[in-house]
Amino acid sequence: MQLSARNQIRGKIKTITLGSIMAEVQVELPDGQQIVSAITRNSVETLQLHENDPVIVIIKSTEVMLGKQA
Amino acid sequence: MQLSARNQIRGKIKTITLGSIMAEVQVELPDGQQIVSAITRNSVETLQLHENDPVIVIIKSTEVMLGKQA
Amino acid sequence: MQLSARNQIRGKIKTITLGSIMAEVQVELPDGQQIVSAITRNSVETLQLHENDPVIVIIKSTEVMLGKQA
Amino acid sequence: MQLSARNQIRGKIKTITLGSIMAEVQVELPDGQQIVSAITRNSVETLQLHENDPVIVIIKSTEVMLGKQA
Amino acid sequence: MQLSARNQIRGKIKTITLGSIMAEVQVELPDGQQIVSAITRNSVETLQLHENDPVIVIIKSTEVMLGKQA
Amino acid sequence: MQLSARNQIRGKIKTITLGSIMAEVQVELPDGQQIVSAITRNSVETLQLHENDPVIVIIKSTEVMLGKQA
Repeated sequence: MQLSARNQIRGKIKTITLGSIMAEVQVELPDGQQIVSAITRNSVETLQLHENDPVIVIIKSTEVMLGKQA
Repeated sequence: MQLSARNQIRGKIKTITLGSIMAEVQVELPDGQQIVSAITRNSVETLQLHENDPVIVIIKSTEVMLGKQA
Repeated sequence: MQLSARNQIRGKIKTITLGSIMAEVQVELPDGQQIVSAITRNSVETLQLHENDPVIVIIKSTEVMLGKQA
Repeated sequence: MQLSARNQIRGKIKTITLGSIMAEVQVELPDGQQIVSAITRNSVETLQLHENDPVIVIIKSTEVMLGKQA
Repeated sequence: MQLSARNQIRGKIKTITLGSIMAEVQVELPDGQQIVSAITRNSVETLQLHENDPVIVIIKSTEVMLGKQA
Repeated sequence: MQLSARNQIRGKIKTITLGSIMAEVQVELPDGQQIVSAITRNSVETLQLHENDPVIVIIKSTEVMLGKQA
């Protein structure tokens, strides 16, 4: 399936922390920078996500802010 | 200012496209992957963003989805 | 690709309106209800979206609010 | 109150799962498709949401992505 | 209609700028601080929004970030 | 750091409720109105947020909806 989301970035899962409703997944990008995703616990279980799994980080462009050092 | 947004990724502006209300900013990450940000034109002008500017890409973790290749 | 987004709803494109940066896509669900998506013009062109195309409407659960009639 | 959110879809609550901070509410649309909403536990309690309650699913159009089968 | 969105703040419209797809609405809060909303042009027209109209600014709590001065 | 987010509102933390993954932070604006932020527990701990701390509430304009009383 092709997605309208403009941001689809390759990474690898470093850690998964499960809560009752939500879960926090830390993903490492090829250049070592980290991206954290907060998704539902149900999604983690449905996708059977595990540490070291290759994943695609997906972000709609309207959700991306920019910062500029003064 | 410290931000609660967990995702703060270094990058450099490649292109800026201005519309009447919105603008599209393409940012290149150190590993060559691209991130696109859709922010208001007003923000681009207020921050005086230009091509080749170093920027920080800021994304709240609840806005980050994951995909897993079947 | 499997997505962590919990909401993936079948629909058919009714109309597409293109702006300089953004675009508005109206999708009809099987029960006749409408969903409107505001994505970038670039996404519409990249996915080659056209009226009557079958599409999947994708929404992260943290973006979904609820209303209850008083 | 009229809302600027373009997406207001009728549905009925199927299940509610409460966590300490967040809650997951599954809503069934008239055509049988499901929508999942992740809202705060406080909202579920304030709105006194229960299974089988009729609700309106509210989604801002900029939060709606599209997917197209290859 | 009661909303699950936790943030519903009274304000008054100061300016409206219309684009082809999107629109920018500046709202002044009782304490003089400003909030900017980017909604679709269609929403502005459907709600018949005009300068000086009283409005409610509605924001889902998962969309709200925090910053702390170092 | 300058942010592209158009909404940066001064406030003071009233309450913090911690869950396993998420946390709910209630912020009071100068005019007494309340804003609730749902961020990750990790963010609360990293920023060392406490009751009565002055904070900046940060919201991207595309996340702000409007309501108009009928």
